Amino acid sequence: MKRVHGGDWAAFQEKQGKLPLDFSANISPLGVPPGVQAAIRHAAAEADRYPDPRCRTLCAALAAREGVPEDGVLCGAGAADLIWRAVFAARPKSALVTAPCFGEYEAALEAVGMEPRRFPLRGDFLLTEEILSWIRPGLDLLILCSPNNPTGRTIAPSLLDAIVRRCGQTGTRLLLDECFVDFLEEPGRHSMKCLLGSEPSLLILRAFTKLWGMAGVRLGYALSTDAAFLDAMHRAGPPWSVSQLAQAAGLVALEERDYVDRVRALVRTERPRLEAGLQALGLRVIPGEANFLLFQSDRPLAEALKERGILIRGCADFHGLDESWYRCAVRTREENNCLLRALGEVLT
Amino acid sequence: MKRVHGGDWAAFQEKQGKLPLDFSANISPLGVPPGVQAAIRHAAAEADRYPDPRCRTLCAALAAREGVPEDGVLCGAGAADLIWRAVFAARPKSALVTAPCFGEYEAALEAVGMEPRRFPLRGDFLLTEEILSWIRPGLDLLILCSPNNPTGRTIAPSLLDAIVRRCGQTGTRLLLDECFVDFLEEPGRHSMKCLLGSEPSLLILRAFTKLWGMAGVRLGYALSTDAAFLDAMHRAGPPWSVSQLAQAAGLVALEERDYVDRVRALVRTERPRLEAGLQALGLRVIPGEANFLLFQSDRPLAEALKERGILIRGCADFHGLDESWYRCAVRTREENNCLLRALGEVLT
Repeated sequence: MKRVHGGDWAAFQEKQGKLPLDFSANISPLGVPPGVQAAIRHAAAEADRYPDPRCRTLCAALAAREGVPEDGVLCGAGAADLIWRAVFAARPKSALVTAPCFGEYEAALEAVGMEPRRFPLRGDFLLTEEILSWIRPGLDLLILCSPNNPTGRTIAPSLLDAIVRRCGQTGTRLLLDECFVDFLEEPGRHSMKCLLGSEPSLLILRAFTKLWGMAGVRLGYALSTDAAFLDAMHRAGPPWSVSQLAQAAGLVALEERDYVDRVRALVRTERPRLEAGLQALGLRVIPGEANFLLFQSDRPLAEALKERGILIRGCADFHGLDESWYRCAVRTREENNCLLRALGEVLT
Repeated sequence: MKRVHGGDWAAFQEKQGKLPLDFSANISPLGVPPGVQAAIRHAAAEADRYPDPRCRTLCAALAAREGVPEDGVLCGAGAADLIWRAVFAARPKSALVTAPCFGEYEAALEAVGMEPRRFPLRGDFLLTEEILSWIRPGLDLLILCSPNNPTGRTIAPSLLDAIVRRCGQTGTRLLLDECFVDFLEEPGRHSMKCLLGSEPSLLILRAFTKLWGMAGVRLGYALSTDAAFLDAMHRAGPPWSVSQLAQAAGLVALEERDYVDRVRALVRTERPRLEAGLQALGLRVIPGEANFLLFQSDRPLAEALKERGILIRGCADFHGLDESWYRCAVRTREENNCLLRALGEVLT
């Protein structure tokens, strides 16, 4: 399947000579936090040195923040880098993902010559307990995302807890992508971080990309108490994947608490508004809980919006979806209104 | 074999609380070019956008500079990223490297479960015509580096030309690492860029790391007329490996001609001085032509230098070398004198 991604402003710019209003990438609409920008500017002068391949200072800060041991953190050039490294390190003979899910899971699995089984998410795409019966001895790798991209649906904490424990019993490594968990009302209730200590087969992924608006910097991290597996992930790719600039940026981002509060408050306020606005236009909207919404339209939308300078994410390339599905980010009030107005024009 | 690398200032800093004078990484000693620093500072504000995965603008600039078609350029997060991608895309059943050579070739090959054959470089480590007889049908991948890291020796252009053509005949992909070619007196005479058009099996690697002092930024590029293979390399890893900051930095670096002239002139002047200084201390120095020198000592040096705040690269982990070998970068006159003084103390 052709790999498509949101956020391809460069293709738009090449054709139209200007930047789009980009709802196709799920990134904080508040820009790079000022402190992070300052850190990058400062680090520019020191970027002649090789980055520390072990990201010692950043890992120590992340370990303190997340309450895990320092050897329980591995940094990567965005969550995508860590997904690929996890798959390369695990070399699974069998793997399970949901359909739909973020495309990089399958891209990485394809690169090691394997096609995963796909657990179909039906109706409103809520994961059901049925998945427990799919987790059996012999399943090497399960990849889940909560809230899931592109649906925005979270896995019920009690079910997720049961999945983690079941994976521990069946010897299945669980890659749990929590890249969007901080956009939830109660991240602490949904994150499975509390199970890291008891379940070494659990690998949690986090990114700086979305919450801190740092997609262009490339920084993410993985958490696990299986230090040997994190080390195998480090050795499964080039040693200097996290740039000096990204390490400096990440350290400061962790201090940007006001920024994070503002982003979270904005998404909390704007998502229901955008959802209602889309529904008012007659679109079927999936009740997602992250900083984006999945919706369905019986008329094509992407090209007509593009003509109006707006990008949304067509979802035809996701297993389990088709060309009637679209994903759009939650942005600022003004920008969301702009999207709703343009959609109104296209649909009437 | 344990992966060791030069430039590990972070481990030094962790122990000694200050930065070392670092001769262990082969990087321009003139720092990040001011224009590149400015580009990074400027790009910091736009780093909320995903980087263009295809690096369109930078690839166009590189294609113009190198005189190749735009689809003949692939950017990566440093040459190391491209080495790994090339190996992952080629999936060789048989591979050949020289001993010694840069360790990442074997690290990447090991990750796809294969151990290469090693062509031994003897005496002063000059590659001989004997290698032609090792290039036979069935050899999938040959990796060469000229000037070679860690020896600094170049492959004679006539021999390299014969190797490229022989690889074309035997169906062997040739990954030719030219990361240090710009430090030579006559880069144009040594680069095999001129053969790209006639030999699609030729893949040339270049980095921004060394010449422009940008190791912490992570940027390199590959040249080939086999666009399908470059595309396979792109798909052999995560799509956004080159950060927005690196793309902006690279574009400006290409304009930094004065900086490049100064670095090249410095290396041209200082390498012979450093070489003579090392020889005067009774050390055996290999007549390298890049921005570093390989030398041999019958007494251990690295720890004693470290106590004096200086890092050099112990070479015990290179196949074909042992703990008597060291590599040091060519730095500024003052810094090189500092190294020579410290070595004088250690050796007497």
